[in-house]
Amino acid sequence: MAATLGQLAAQFGCELVGDAGVVVKRVGTLGSAAPDAVTFLANSSYRAQLKHTRAAAVILAPRDRDACPVACLVHAEPYLAYARIATSLHPPASAVPGVHMSAVVAASARVSPSAQLDAHAVVGSDSTIAADAVVGAGAVLGANVSIGKGTRIGARVAVLDGVRIGARCIVHPGAVIGADGFGFAPDSGKWQKIPQVGSVIIGDDVEIGANTTIDRGAIEDTVIEDGVKLDNLVQIAHNARIGAHTIMAAMSGVAGSTKVGKRCMIGGGTVMINSLTIGDDVTITFRSIVTRSIEEPGTYSGHLPAEEAGLWRKNAARFRKLDALADRLIEAERALERITGSKSKNKDD
Amino acid sequence: MAATLGQLAAQFGCELVGDAGVVVKRVGTLGSAAPDAVTFLANSSYRAQLKHTRAAAVILAPRDRDACPVACLVHAEPYLAYARIATSLHPPASAVPGVHMSAVVAASARVSPSAQLDAHAVVGSDSTIAADAVVGAGAVLGANVSIGKGTRIGARVAVLDGVRIGARCIVHPGAVIGADGFGFAPDSGKWQKIPQVGSVIIGDDVEIGANTTIDRGAIEDTVIEDGVKLDNLVQIAHNARIGAHTIMAAMSGVAGSTKVGKRCMIGGGTVMINSLTIGDDVTITFRSIVTRSIEEPGTYSGHLPAEEAGLWRKNAARFRKLDALADRLIEAERALERITGSKSKNKDD
Amino acid sequence: MAATLGQLAAQFGCELVGDAGVVVKRVGTLGSAAPDAVTFLANSSYRAQLKHTRAAAVILAPRDRDACPVACLVHAEPYLAYARIATSLHPPASAVPGVHMSAVVAASARVSPSAQLDAHAVVGSDSTIAADAVVGAGAVLGANVSIGKGTRIGARVAVLDGVRIGARCIVHPGAVIGADGFGFAPDSGKWQKIPQVGSVIIGDDVEIGANTTIDRGAIEDTVIEDGVKLDNLVQIAHNARIGAHTIMAAMSGVAGSTKVGKRCMIGGGTVMINSLTIGDDVTITFRSIVTRSIEEPGTYSGHLPAEEAGLWRKNAARFRKLDALADRLIEAERALERITGSKSKNKDD
Repeated sequence: MAATLGQLAAQFGCELVGDAGVVVKRVGTLGSAAPDAVTFLANSSYRAQLKHTRAAAVILAPRDRDACPVACLVHAEPYLAYARIATSLHPPASAVPGVHMSAVVAASARVSPSAQLDAHAVVGSDSTIAADAVVGAGAVLGANVSIGKGTRIGARVAVLDGVRIGARCIVHPGAVIGADGFGFAPDSGKWQKIPQVGSVIIGDDVEIGANTTIDRGAIEDTVIEDGVKLDNLVQIAHNARIGAHTIMAAMSGVAGSTKVGKRCMIGGGTVMINSLTIGDDVTITFRSIVTRSIEEPGTYSGHLPAEEAGLWRKNAARFRKLDALADRLIEAERALERITGSKSKNKDD
Repeated sequence: MAATLGQLAAQFGCELVGDAGVVVKRVGTLGSAAPDAVTFLANSSYRAQLKHTRAAAVILAPRDRDACPVACLVHAEPYLAYARIATSLHPPASAVPGVHMSAVVAASARVSPSAQLDAHAVVGSDSTIAADAVVGAGAVLGANVSIGKGTRIGARVAVLDGVRIGARCIVHPGAVIGADGFGFAPDSGKWQKIPQVGSVIIGDDVEIGANTTIDRGAIEDTVIEDGVKLDNLVQIAHNARIGAHTIMAAMSGVAGSTKVGKRCMIGGGTVMINSLTIGDDVTITFRSIVTRSIEEPGTYSGHLPAEEAGLWRKNAARFRKLDALADRLIEAERALERITGSKSKNKDD
Repeated sequence: MAATLGQLAAQFGCELVGDAGVVVKRVGTLGSAAPDAVTFLANSSYRAQLKHTRAAAVILAPRDRDACPVACLVHAEPYLAYARIATSLHPPASAVPGVHMSAVVAASARVSPSAQLDAHAVVGSDSTIAADAVVGAGAVLGANVSIGKGTRIGARVAVLDGVRIGARCIVHPGAVIGADGFGFAPDSGKWQKIPQVGSVIIGDDVEIGANTTIDRGAIEDTVIEDGVKLDNLVQIAHNARIGAHTIMAAMSGVAGSTKVGKRCMIGGGTVMINSLTIGDDVTITFRSIVTRSIEEPGTYSGHLPAEEAGLWRKNAARFRKLDALADRLIEAERALERITGSKSKNKDD
């Protein structure tokens, strides 16, 4: 969807430096954008790349405007401005109203005339598909499912009985929403399944990644609040609650009944064990394992970076004896005390 | 499925304290159960919640009976009793016999008249679907697949050629059973694929989570014994064997040819490397990496909990020099010996 | 597909010790191969198993030939010879030309007459399916997708708009290729989606595991070069590039814009954070977290093996105070210096 730089500047609140009549049709990278593309510079440490760009214009911050050899769209938050302008140039496809003849839709389902149901989609009894929603090819919606206005269910997504998804959500292919939570009672060396009678309630503007799984609640519901963004291969267990506008990167997971606050940022591969409460505005870096509730906003970490194997092996071997090493240090400190007759300053445990 | 408290007490071996004629229709939580619901107290540390419950009755242990303000169903194992009573009140749906007209079933497949095949299900040649089994919408079964009595294959599950699944299993949507194991021989900087000619054999009463993957064996079979419970996004590699009644939480994995014993409990995110033997009754807590065989029953761990980022960063930086720190400690101990003329008591490596 | 030992020796460059006329029909393990099977011994530490084998012949290295009680096919790289011979005995099924009547193929799609499209497969507009390709049951290909010659797309795979897959690839069931990358700009406590307008380009001879996800690029493409092998439940984020003949085991992941070199070996569960460059011929063992670019070929590690829970707990508690312990060691060293009047030899930080 083409636009002039003047139109983009006006619509997205940028100051334009350059020719307002130039037409742009797409986005590109600083390094390889074509002359009909707009690009962006969000991180000034890449400023050196500016001078080689062939883009029609660069979206950038005031601090970088003088270094830009081509037109620029100046905005205090250039990455955000880029996101909006890119969406304007590359808008998501609209629903093409209609039900593909191979789709299987229960007679009692209510499908908006403006919704799009693709080939081999399945919609169960008493389910509702709101206006402008899309149900992708091979997606399977169970009974009593509710899909909100403008929500896009990807190909081969499974949404099980009773799950409610709000408006303007995007669910990527392969996601499974509403499978049974993992609940069993021990029974003389075997396991007795506990019925999972809750459901999953998903707010508006939620995005759910490919092959991500969100389990239904054991008794009450699993809840994903408005604006949550989940990446691929994420696991949300039964009765978890993910607070509004929290973002979770790929392969992260939340165990049963854990409540995550609003506006949290959860790094890739991070796992939270069950029954925790994580407050609002908590950032947890990648690949951490969270075993305690966290009240304080802030950043938390839990990974040890990979090292050359020989160095790693030596350190890992010492870790295996870390408690013994600590005891030896205490012993050495005591020996020193006996010699010097004074206590070590750092003695604190 | 409604029942009176008297019926539940009689059927599930509970002592009833209260009115045997009260009818319950569902389960609820201690905190929000409606007056037609039964709830449970399995962990006495939540006993304080008892006094506010509006449930018709609480399933609880003898030690908690006197604290219960409403009717109670007393049982030595209240969580197990709850699981059974909840199943009685919320029984799994029975198969609705019949093959949906959009299903594609090979002429040579044998499908029990009491089995249910949903929309767009696919059943390959010479496969067998036993009585009361359900094959969900869009599920794909290859050739020579066997599905046991009463087993429920979820929507969009893939079961590949030759896989055998026992009776009363539940396979949740998106699971893939019998894809090729990951086997390649190095070939001058490239990889030569090794045919994966084994299959997957799954016992009775197994539950397999959403988007979990179980690979077929390279030569012999991958085996999941009776009563195993696998959560979502679990990976079982070729030629692994998971012993009866072992339970594996989400995002855990077992690499090739590793044998896990019976009644093991594997925490979420835990990974076992290839070719290990893990004995019976081994518990491994979440997010561990198991690199050695384990013979002894017991509990094993391997995670470092996340901490406030500043503290974590300092400790992680020290870990990087742990071997050097240990050497310095040894040096300090030696210096002390030279001074005191005696050996440190803790000197053991 | 049966062959005589003489034929196999000639075709695969082995020296035959034994009767050239013996017919073999399948592969087996050393321990349980039937008399019509060929097996292999690649690791001499299993040599003791040779004497019990009932196989028709054993593929082995020159060093093991004298220990073999049955016929043998001697080759300098017995595992590679086994891979080739096994492929010869168990060749992958050929495409059965034709489009199943339940498949939905856009009028503008170009499907080779020799391609096989299974039940409920969906092919979008302007997509191309080359000769001898297979599109499995329920697989969904979007618009403008290109599938190369002889490539096998498994059941229920999703390949989104514009993705190009080369020749002779294997994509296992449930994989999702070309879903949106995970890109959002912060917007006053909410998130603004960034359109993901790049695609995914996959080379020849690539294998992609079950339920693995490969995201499309934000602006430019995500690239998987020739000969890459990805196991199950792997995550490749937007704009990543995986170099030719690199192999990644299950549950590993690469974050956005990270470039992995050629012939790398990435262990199961290993994660690389975003925007790194990993050189060629780098091996990273299982469950590592890679946070820095790696130039040097070699082996890198990052896991701490699980231990008996009591020992682990003690060491983990000490880790939590590792920085303080190190400070105390420094203090002890200083005290020793004050006593001895000389500097510790190991004092290096």
